[in-house]
Amino acid sequence: MSQTEISSLGEFGLIDRLTDGIVSKHASTVLAVGDDAAVLDYPDEEILVTTDMLLENVHFDLTYVPLKHLGYKAAVVNFSDIYAMNGRPRQITVSLGVSKRFTVEHIEALYSGIRLACEIYGVDIVGGDTCASHQGLVISITCIGAAPRGKAVRRSGAKPTDIICVSGDLGAAYMGLQLLEREKVASAGRADFEPDFAGKEYIVERQLKPEARRDVVEALAKEGVTPTAMMDVSDGLSSELLHICKQSGVGCRVYEDRIPIDYQTALMAEELNMNLVTAALNGGEDYELLFTVPLADHDKVARIPGVKEIGYITDASKGCALVARDGESEIELRAQGWNPLAE
Amino acid sequence: MSQTEISSLGEFGLIDRLTDGIVSKHASTVLAVGDDAAVLDYPDEEILVTTDMLLENVHFDLTYVPLKHLGYKAAVVNFSDIYAMNGRPRQITVSLGVSKRFTVEHIEALYSGIRLACEIYGVDIVGGDTCASHQGLVISITCIGAAPRGKAVRRSGAKPTDIICVSGDLGAAYMGLQLLEREKVASAGRADFEPDFAGKEYIVERQLKPEARRDVVEALAKEGVTPTAMMDVSDGLSSELLHICKQSGVGCRVYEDRIPIDYQTALMAEELNMNLVTAALNGGEDYELLFTVPLADHDKVARIPGVKEIGYITDASKGCALVARDGESEIELRAQGWNPLAE
Repeated sequence: MSQTEISSLGEFGLIDRLTDGIVSKHASTVLAVGDDAAVLDYPDEEILVTTDMLLENVHFDLTYVPLKHLGYKAAVVNFSDIYAMNGRPRQITVSLGVSKRFTVEHIEALYSGIRLACEIYGVDIVGGDTCASHQGLVISITCIGAAPRGKAVRRSGAKPTDIICVSGDLGAAYMGLQLLEREKVASAGRADFEPDFAGKEYIVERQLKPEARRDVVEALAKEGVTPTAMMDVSDGLSSELLHICKQSGVGCRVYEDRIPIDYQTALMAEELNMNLVTAALNGGEDYELLFTVPLADHDKVARIPGVKEIGYITDASKGCALVARDGESEIELRAQGWNPLAE
Repeated sequence: MSQTEISSLGEFGLIDRLTDGIVSKHASTVLAVGDDAAVLDYPDEEILVTTDMLLENVHFDLTYVPLKHLGYKAAVVNFSDIYAMNGRPRQITVSLGVSKRFTVEHIEALYSGIRLACEIYGVDIVGGDTCASHQGLVISITCIGAAPRGKAVRRSGAKPTDIICVSGDLGAAYMGLQLLEREKVASAGRADFEPDFAGKEYIVERQLKPEARRDVVEALAKEGVTPTAMMDVSDGLSSELLHICKQSGVGCRVYEDRIPIDYQTALMAEELNMNLVTAALNGGEDYELLFTVPLADHDKVARIPGVKEIGYITDASKGCALVARDGESEIELRAQGWNPLAE
């Protein structure tokens, strides 16, 4: 493929090329890219705003992350935050810092992933900023979404006896990362190296191309269930549970044998001689939804595919603990999630 | 001053410290920092969204930019984009990428500038992201603002015979940058060096601590004037005029002798043997407002302090030109503004 230097297009030429053919989908998008600010209109809903920054070699490693996947993930992790408020993502702004080793075609690949995610989740790109970087690739995305007025679900509403639910399975994205890192080390200096992901496609995909749980939010709405508290699992189940408990002023019990884990995650943990429960409790980037519902909603929640009840909310005095497989011994939950400032 | 390693606080500890004591000012801010997303409510207005990314050694040089000033400027440039839509800034999210050489105290200094700007302009900090960077300091701010429904002013509404107006004066921030660069070179390797800014305080301040023209937007509202097109001068007057003309499908004439220039800007240009008009036309970062109004609004605009009429809009066929001091010869306007991707 021919490669075009970014400086040959300039900022506005590049933006024109990246945003070519984008048509706004939402009535709430009044004016998109091309002015000092985008214009949105949300007369009947509350607006949700979230933002995420991704830095090369901190949040992603281009040795094994394809640019299109990276764009897709960068968008989806923001959508996930909006769903975690019981909202629907509607618009994003995309800011990119791009160093000289990237060509126009590279940035188009990145942007094609962002556009694909927007296509699938029904989100409009309404603005952004594109600038030179001396410092590798920098991606900053802000997502705007909406929830019916008064219906946004915070982290702070969990009450004793509420059921704790989680969607999908946990630890897979983390084990996918371990696998990718192992293959990267194995490939060092070997041009002919072919990484072996056979039988591990799921965990690799969980790491490289996560999805946001729109389906769960829609299923909850269909069942008429409004969670009392909700957040997405980006830093690990332990860390997120502690956030909900702290902000709700409650405690919790979670059953080790109820934590959903895919068999590929389990196999990989065994192969790498890692503790599986630790991976599921503390591995980040699963982007599943963790939420609490009143006990009375048990039947409704049980009908939603892919949602599992893993424990319950207690008084704050009981603390936050994992109930081991023996059904008796308890281990205090600790936030050992990834510390984004400890790099 | 004692210095604290950021890793000793962790992400959440740092955010707690940075956002301590922040109280939301706007009714539109329903929920600020601390959840998956902020919750805002704008039932009666259109929402404006703008975003800006600032990268160390591309957009700022910490050799001569104090961190507090940098934070102030990073916020104000976003407010400026909202005012440029005839809106009012209300909320921002602040994402920071921070490398190891920064301490908690450094980031507090940066944040204190952001908070000061928010205090002065009446803006709430409602979210953000803080992460490690291997790549120097990265600042990405998104600003949300509002305008009465249907009253946001785009770049695309200028019509032939409209008067072209600009606030304040131009070229000062650019000449301030030249001065700061000169003093940086002069100081290299000399620990005892004291930069000499005597008599040039204004241009240094224009570069380091720009203000957004809230006063002009408020004065226009008070006079009952709605500009037909408006934007802020961040990339240089020429570049911005060409944007308005292209997006409005018109041409323009601007008079060289009407371009407002401060005497410190003129003195500095002379001292550095630079062309003053070129600096005023192409120097960026003035954050003044450039706007067009119908001819009938001349008297009203003339009453607003600090606003100057510099030319008029023509048919597109006339092109975009600067009328020289002799009142006859015309020079075609070109966008020689700073190309943020040519670094």
